Amino acid sequence: MKKVGIALLGLGVVGSGTYRILKSKAENIKRDYGVELEVRQVLEKDLSKAEALGIDLSIVSCDIANVLNDKEISVVAEFFGGIEPAKTFLIACLKAGKSVVTSNKELFSKHWPELEAAAKETGAGIYFEASCGGGVPIIRALHESCQGNDILEIKGIVNGTTNYILSNMSEKGSDYADTLKEAQRLGYAEANPSADVDGFDSTYKLSILSSLSFRKRVPYTAIYREGISGVTKEDIKYGKEFGLTVKLLAISKNVGGKIEAHVYPAFIPDDHPLAKVSGAFNGIYVVGDNVGELMFYGKGAGDLPTGSAIVSDIVYAATHDIHKRYPFILEEEASDFNNDFESEYFIRLIAKDQTGVLSEITGILGKAGISIDSMVQKAGSHGKATIVLITQKTTELTFKAALDALKQAACIDEVANVIRVEK
Amino acid sequence: MKKVGIALLGLGVVGSGTYRILKSKAENIKRDYGVELEVRQVLEKDLSKAEALGIDLSIVSCDIANVLNDKEISVVAEFFGGIEPAKTFLIACLKAGKSVVTSNKELFSKHWPELEAAAKETGAGIYFEASCGGGVPIIRALHESCQGNDILEIKGIVNGTTNYILSNMSEKGSDYADTLKEAQRLGYAEANPSADVDGFDSTYKLSILSSLSFRKRVPYTAIYREGISGVTKEDIKYGKEFGLTVKLLAISKNVGGKIEAHVYPAFIPDDHPLAKVSGAFNGIYVVGDNVGELMFYGKGAGDLPTGSAIVSDIVYAATHDIHKRYPFILEEEASDFNNDFESEYFIRLIAKDQTGVLSEITGILGKAGISIDSMVQKAGSHGKATIVLITQKTTELTFKAALDALKQAACIDEVANVIRVEK
Repeated sequence: MKKVGIALLGLGVVGSGTYRILKSKAENIKRDYGVELEVRQVLEKDLSKAEALGIDLSIVSCDIANVLNDKEISVVAEFFGGIEPAKTFLIACLKAGKSVVTSNKELFSKHWPELEAAAKETGAGIYFEASCGGGVPIIRALHESCQGNDILEIKGIVNGTTNYILSNMSEKGSDYADTLKEAQRLGYAEANPSADVDGFDSTYKLSILSSLSFRKRVPYTAIYREGISGVTKEDIKYGKEFGLTVKLLAISKNVGGKIEAHVYPAFIPDDHPLAKVSGAFNGIYVVGDNVGELMFYGKGAGDLPTGSAIVSDIVYAATHDIHKRYPFILEEEASDFNNDFESEYFIRLIAKDQTGVLSEITGILGKAGISIDSMVQKAGSHGKATIVLITQKTTELTFKAALDALKQAACIDEVANVIRVEK
Repeated sequence: MKKVGIALLGLGVVGSGTYRILKSKAENIKRDYGVELEVRQVLEKDLSKAEALGIDLSIVSCDIANVLNDKEISVVAEFFGGIEPAKTFLIACLKAGKSVVTSNKELFSKHWPELEAAAKETGAGIYFEASCGGGVPIIRALHESCQGNDILEIKGIVNGTTNYILSNMSEKGSDYADTLKEAQRLGYAEANPSADVDGFDSTYKLSILSSLSFRKRVPYTAIYREGISGVTKEDIKYGKEFGLTVKLLAISKNVGGKIEAHVYPAFIPDDHPLAKVSGAFNGIYVVGDNVGELMFYGKGAGDLPTGSAIVSDIVYAATHDIHKRYPFILEEEASDFNNDFESEYFIRLIAKDQTGVLSEITGILGKAGISIDSMVQKAGSHGKATIVLITQKTTELTFKAALDALKQAACIDEVANVIRVEK
């Protein structure tokens, strides 16, 4: 039986989960895929983590040379996260002809071309199934199940932390700040939550998914980004009245050859397949011109779900001599972006509770060429009313101009919030 | 650039769709996958179909020898459906070293071992992504994304015809017979609808999905099967009152090493991910012991969606020299089935509208050890009442005994229907 040596760089949550799966499923993998996987080197400075997993400490070190010099190791799985030393180590492995497996979306979205070039040199493979949806097998699906399609659209919930926060705010009617604190207490959010709540993590993932879908590199820096900290419980409450649920969406579209790519909180209809993707789950909705709509759903994080995706890559890399190539990553960078994209908008206003207010508001929007889809008005205290409008489709620039006009209208005290609506 | 010759056996709906995709995406496939696909032979007796697609008639015939003798052809896609001549032709192709691609679930569920044995002889590949969920990439996901898992459960809506009928009955409150007629008129159901409505098609698909998941051959004959013709608009109406939606489900479970495999109509909660899979869509829910819950969703049929899955297999077969193997299909047939499986039940009764009826019914069920989860009673005319019960989990045999007792109870006129509930 073919025997393949593996190295694990890091024994954090996912690294440990991966080791446990490799150990518990070793016999299955031998029987079903005809390969014996042997973990021959582990890089980890905290020896107690290796001990807890029952790993022989003689194969644990902090020296990448131990991995590079072992000719029996042909697959290296990286769990460090962040750019360095992951980047230097992985490029060295690829140049040594070792295939690499990673869930490191930040590294991948920022340095895919360098990794791809190093891999191309030696014919080694680079695998990143776990990078965009945890356990959800979306990378394989886009690359090996959609060859007969031009991908028209991706719409994904790809960050479990923000989905947990928004789902909880929606279920419990709680504040953003309180829910974030609770998520931090439970370990669903980091002490510094910015990478998740400000949308960076989703942006990295969307860069990878868009590049694969549109067959040219979509840099994460070209993706419009808004986080979830501005979403309030009032917005969520009014959204419900319109049959809408708020989600942090990562959206890419190919509209007539121009790419639109954005990460922002948006309302979606309660009956959209993504609306039921709650808590720590991820859901990725894909539209191909031949296959039509597809959706993929599963756990977006966690030691064993993400470890499952890592192991699927390790088995794939270990059983193939000719590896997958992504030539377009080296050849073409997307440059034709449409930033004046169309959306519908949810607008929540605090206005004076007097006659004529509604006609003034609809007048301002109408003058800008924006039609109103639906509207609700609630009387408040102190002569104020809350007015919530859903507009029909309009472009970003048109909307911004109309919003400025609304802010200056005498009858409006405050534009309390604006959230996009995706149908 | 690598050039690979293709043969298409049949130009029906999916065969024609596949040809159109191969033609329209030829440049994409060359650019992204480094292979030029050339359709070199087509088997089709109706030449007008070939003409409509612009196929040079010199490559169209009814003679498989033209395919077998062309050494440039290394991938053969079959669209005949049914057992013969598909089986004889595909085995001949495999023995000639040509990889085969098919969506033929009947052939595959009945004769996979013969196909696998022929493929093993020459190292040719057999690919069947389009067999179980139309455009939904479920085969690749089970085989190449779940290697680090034991699959615990599959729960699928894999037949678009029955899903269309049940979705329509639910939306419009219409009868089964009328809805079937309408589906036939629109081309969603065959003139002889038995293969779909009696659950045979779902059973074939579940046999393939279960074999892949449990790594031993699960013969379709071992799968318990009930069709949808007994579901009435009254059942659907009462189901709604309990927050339940009816679907034809294909379910396989691995419960402590014993396999439970069934196809039957069942109620699922409105908030289950499968409940929103309506109309001609398919949805397949999978639970792995490490990855947890996954769901795959997309169009279950149609020329281009199914053609998309066929083309993904053709590209895969054309770009790999070492093909996928399913050794377990030749080695082990599942024999350890549990037929006394657990379910919850929806029971709709017509009873005499008199005091003591409910206590008599709950008494009968209680004596059998069956607890009631929820219940509704509606007064009808002529001194009759409709009583609808949802039981808690009970085994098949226990339930059948209790059902016999209910049928004999003096207070009950009729057990109008019984439908399983899957939570």
